[in-house]
Amino acid sequence: MIATDAMAASPSPKIRTQLVADRETLMRIFIRPESDASRQTLVKYMDQILFGLHEFLTRHVGVTQEISLKELSKRFTDTHIGQHPERKLADVITDLIENIAPHAVNVASPYFVGHMTSALPFFMVHLKTIVAALNQNVIKLETSKVVSIIEKQVLAKIHRVIFQKDDAFYLKYVQNPHTTLGCFVEDGTLANVSALWVARNALLAPHNNFRGVEAEGLAVAYRAYDIDRLVVLVSRLGHYSLKKACGVLGIGNQNLIPIDVDTNNRMDIHHLKKVVAALHTNTPQTRILAVVGIAGTTETGSVDPLGAIADICHEHGVHFHVDAAWGGPVLMSEKYRHLLSGIERADSVTIDGHKQFYMPMTCGMVYFNNPDLPDAVEYHAGYVIRQGSVDLGRKSLSGSREASSLILDSTLKIMGTRGYGLLIEHGIDTAHEFADEIRKRPLFELTTPPELNILTYRIHPPAAKERMAGPHDAATWNKRLNAITRSVQQLQREAGKSFVSRTTLRGNNAADMERVVFRCVIMNPMTTISILREILDEQENIYHQLDIPLESSTL
Amino acid sequence: MIATDAMAASPSPKIRTQLVADRETLMRIFIRPESDASRQTLVKYMDQILFGLHEFLTRHVGVTQEISLKELSKRFTDTHIGQHPERKLADVITDLIENIAPHAVNVASPYFVGHMTSALPFFMVHLKTIVAALNQNVIKLETSKVVSIIEKQVLAKIHRVIFQKDDAFYLKYVQNPHTTLGCFVEDGTLANVSALWVARNALLAPHNNFRGVEAEGLAVAYRAYDIDRLVVLVSRLGHYSLKKACGVLGIGNQNLIPIDVDTNNRMDIHHLKKVVAALHTNTPQTRILAVVGIAGTTETGSVDPLGAIADICHEHGVHFHVDAAWGGPVLMSEKYRHLLSGIERADSVTIDGHKQFYMPMTCGMVYFNNPDLPDAVEYHAGYVIRQGSVDLGRKSLSGSREASSLILDSTLKIMGTRGYGLLIEHGIDTAHEFADEIRKRPLFELTTPPELNILTYRIHPPAAKERMAGPHDAATWNKRLNAITRSVQQLQREAGKSFVSRTTLRGNNAADMERVVFRCVIMNPMTTISILREILDEQENIYHQLDIPLESSTL
Repeated sequence: MIATDAMAASPSPKIRTQLVADRETLMRIFIRPESDASRQTLVKYMDQILFGLHEFLTRHVGVTQEISLKELSKRFTDTHIGQHPERKLADVITDLIENIAPHAVNVASPYFVGHMTSALPFFMVHLKTIVAALNQNVIKLETSKVVSIIEKQVLAKIHRVIFQKDDAFYLKYVQNPHTTLGCFVEDGTLANVSALWVARNALLAPHNNFRGVEAEGLAVAYRAYDIDRLVVLVSRLGHYSLKKACGVLGIGNQNLIPIDVDTNNRMDIHHLKKVVAALHTNTPQTRILAVVGIAGTTETGSVDPLGAIADICHEHGVHFHVDAAWGGPVLMSEKYRHLLSGIERADSVTIDGHKQFYMPMTCGMVYFNNPDLPDAVEYHAGYVIRQGSVDLGRKSLSGSREASSLILDSTLKIMGTRGYGLLIEHGIDTAHEFADEIRKRPLFELTTPPELNILTYRIHPPAAKERMAGPHDAATWNKRLNAITRSVQQLQREAGKSFVSRTTLRGNNAADMERVVFRCVIMNPMTTISILREILDEQENIYHQLDIPLESSTL
Repeated sequence: MIATDAMAASPSPKIRTQLVADRETLMRIFIRPESDASRQTLVKYMDQILFGLHEFLTRHVGVTQEISLKELSKRFTDTHIGQHPERKLADVITDLIENIAPHAVNVASPYFVGHMTSALPFFMVHLKTIVAALNQNVIKLETSKVVSIIEKQVLAKIHRVIFQKDDAFYLKYVQNPHTTLGCFVEDGTLANVSALWVARNALLAPHNNFRGVEAEGLAVAYRAYDIDRLVVLVSRLGHYSLKKACGVLGIGNQNLIPIDVDTNNRMDIHHLKKVVAALHTNTPQTRILAVVGIAGTTETGSVDPLGAIADICHEHGVHFHVDAAWGGPVLMSEKYRHLLSGIERADSVTIDGHKQFYMPMTCGMVYFNNPDLPDAVEYHAGYVIRQGSVDLGRKSLSGSREASSLILDSTLKIMGTRGYGLLIEHGIDTAHEFADEIRKRPLFELTTPPELNILTYRIHPPAAKERMAGPHDAATWNKRLNAITRSVQQLQREAGKSFVSRTTLRGNNAADMERVVFRCVIMNPMTTISILREILDEQENIYHQLDIPLESSTL
C-alpha cells in the first residue's frame, strides 16, 4: 500500500508490486506512519500548521511572481492513476506543502483584501482536525449521536441571536425532534436554495386533492393553484445564487425580478412597492414566492431596509428571506447590530460560517423563524431517517454531512459574542478609515462608501473628473476609466504582494455607465490601515507606470 | 478573547471582561495558544489524533452503555451564547475530547458494520488538516489557483476509471476551461440532484423562442415541448435522494417511478421495458427524463444490469444516470470491476469520496460522459466566475467549496489503484465468507447474499421455517420474525459493543411480507470474519435471552 523504507526514490515497478500486494501493508497504512523518518516529516509539518499557522502560510503559500495559468495547467495533465503507489506518504505530503501550496493563494495574508475568505484563528484548524478524526455523519443519530444533539443546540443559539424569541420558545424547540430551527448546508448558495425550497413547498402545499408541489411537481401545482408563474424579488445587488436557486427549483431564473437600488445601494422600497402593485394588477396569475432582503451585498456590503421589506411582506403574506450570508455575524456586535434591524422579522435567514464566523471552508446555514416550516421538505428512508426519529437528515437538502456544528459550538465557547464583536468592529471601523484615506487621495474615487466592511473605489484622475462633468462624452470617459482600473487591478494581482478584487457596478445605470471598480473586503484582523495605505501606494505607482495617455483611444 | 493563564476555573465576569476587550487578545487568539500549558494540552491531543488515530478512537469514543437520548438532550438545552468566553481554549478542546466524544459514535470500530461510514486511513486526517489550513475556496481561481487545476486533473483521473476514453480525449479535456468532466459536491444526494439538474436542462433546452427550462421554469418548458410530465425510472431499491431530487427540481417526487427488482435485487429489465413501452403508448405527453441504474444499492449492495439499461436508454434517447455513490470505487479492483460493467455507457455517474474512497466527511462527486453537457447549468457573476474564466464555480450546484480534490489526489498517489483494490476485495471477500457463516447457523436466514460487500439476514429459527412453509399464516409468522429481529438489533446496539443496522426489505412483496432484516456493511479492513462471528454469537445470545415464546401473540 504505502512504500516501505526500502523503497528507493524512484522505485522499480517490481518493488512497488511487492509493497502493495499484502494485507499487512494495508493494515499498516490505516494505522500509523510507515517509519520513524516518515513520522518525523509528518510531525514537522503538522507542528508548523497547528502551532504556527500564520508563519507557515506566509512561508509556504502565496506567489510572489505570477506563474501563467497555462504554464501551471501543463504540469497537471497526466490522467492515469498508478496501479501502485507513486510516492511514499511522507513524500506526497512534502510535495503538497513544498511544491503545490506555493501555487495556492494565501487568503490569510493581511494584504489579501479581495474576497470573503481570510485568515482563520489557528484553533479552527485544530477543531477541523478533531471533526475529521471523529468522522461523524450528521445525517442520522446512529452515526453521530451526541453531535446531532449539539447541532440542535448550536442552531438554537444562533437562531436566538437572529430572532430573539423568549426562553419558553427555546426550551420548547431546542431539542424537539419534530421541529427544525435551522440546518447546516454546504454553503450560502445551498442555504438560499433550501430557504426558497421550503418557501415554495409551503406556498404550494397540499390542498383538497392536490398532494403538494414536492409530490406532484410545478406544472400540476400551478394548475391546482390557478397561477402561471412564481416570482422572487431581490435588489439588483442580489447574489447570483438566488438566480441559480430559481433555476434549480423549476421556477425559472428569469422570474427572479431585480428591484432598483437607491443611492446607498439598498433596495429602493418605492420601486419594490411599485413592482408588487403592478404584479397584482397586471398579472393576477403571478404569485410572489418570496422577497429577499440582503444583509451585506457581495459587491458593496450594503444592507437592505429589512424592516420596510418585512412590512411589505407582512401586508401581502409573502415569505421574507434575508440573505445574511455575509452580514449575519454583525449581530454579534453590540455597536453595529442595529444595522441589521428588521432581520428578526424574516421567515428565513442564510448565514455562512466560513465567512464572518471565521470557520474553515465550508459551513452554510439556513434558519427558519417558524420551526414547523421545514416540515414541507421532509423525507424518509427505510434504513435511516425513519419517521419520528431524531435523525437530522429528515429535513435537509443534503444527505451525508460533516459535523461543522462542533466547530461553531466550540468557537462560540472560546470567543463569546464579544470576541466576534471585536472582529466585526475591527472590519467596519477600518473600512471607514480606509474610505477617508481614499477620499483624501486625488487619484481615486470612492464609488461605494462602506456600510459594513466592504467598499469599492476606482482610479479617477482629476483631469478625468473635470471632463466627466460634461455629460456629452461621459460614457467614453467612463470606458477609459474602466480600462485603467482593470489594468491596475490585474498588474497588482500579478505582482503578487496584494490582492484587491474587481467588480463591475451596474446599479440602475445604463450599460455604458457601468463602472469597473476595486472591491475591498476587510475582515482579517491583521489588516490595518497602514497596510491599506501601502496597497493604495502600490496602485498609484502602477498607475503612473502605466504610461498610457489618459485620452488615448486605445483605452 | 480567550482566557489568559490568570483566569481561574470559574472566572468572575469581571476578569472575563478584561480578557476579551482588547485588540491584543484578539490578535493572540488568531495566532497561537495562549500559554505553554495550553499548548501542551493541544499538543497532547493532536499527537494522539494524528499519530495514534485508532487507539485514540477506541479509548475516547463509543459508548459501552447506552445513555438515553432524552437524558443526553437535557444536557444541551442552554441556548445563550456568553458575551465573554465560557472557557479557555484548552479547556474547550479537553471538554470536546473527554466529555463529548465519548457520546459520539465510534464509526471506526471493526465492530461497527452497520453503515457506510467506517475507519479512515490515519493520513486522511493529516490531509484534511492541511486543506483546512490552506483554506482555499474552489469556487474561483482567485481563491484557489493551483487547487482548481489539480481538481480538474483528479476529476479527469476518476473520469478515466469510469469511462475509459482514450489519451486524446483526456489531453483535450483535462485542463480545458470550457468543459466539465465532473464536479465535487457535498455528498451523493447533491451529486444525484446535480446529474438530474443537468439532464433536465439538456432535455428542456432552449429552442425557437423558448429560452430553456432553467430560464423560464418547468411550467413554460412543458408547454414549449408539449409535454405534461417528466418521469425518472429507478428500481425499488433506489436511494431516497432521487425522490428528493425530483421534488427539488420541480418534477414532483411521485414522478420517480419504481421498477421491480428480480430475485437478486437488480432492476428487472423486462419490467423496465414494459414500463417504458406503456409510457410511450398510454401517455404520449410524458417524457422520460432519465433512467437510473444503481451500482451498489444502499440496502443490499446490489448492482443493476447496467449494460442492459444502457441499451434501452440508447434506443429511446434517454439520459442514463448511474448512482454509484457506494459501488464506484469497485472499479479500482481488477478482480471485481467487471461487476460494474456497462457503467462506461452512462451519461452521468455519482460517486462518494467519503464512502469507499475512505475520505473524511464529506465528498460527493458527479461525472459526465460528455464534458459539454454541464454547460446547461452555467452561471456567472460580476465579481467572480466571469464568462470564459477558469473558475470552477461556473457550473456547479454549490458556490463556496472546500478543496476535497487535494485529499483525493494525494490519496491516489499514496495508495494507487491497487491499494483501493485491496480494500474493496477485503470487503467483498469477507462478505462472502460471512454469508457462508450465516448459512451454517440454523438460527439465521440470509435474506440477500452479497454481491458487493453488503448483505442482509434475519433471525429465523428452524421452527418458524417449518411453519412458514405453509402459506396460510406466512404473514403472521413474518410479523413475528420482524419483531424478533427488531428487538435483537436494538438490544445489541444498546449493549454498545457492536452495531449492525436494520432495514425493511420491501422488494416487490405485499406489505405484510416486508421483512425486517439486519444490514451488514463490510468496509473496515480491520473487520475480520472472526469479529463477524462474534457479532453473530452475540445476536444468538441476545435471542436466547429474549425468552419470548416464538408463538406469543405479543410479537
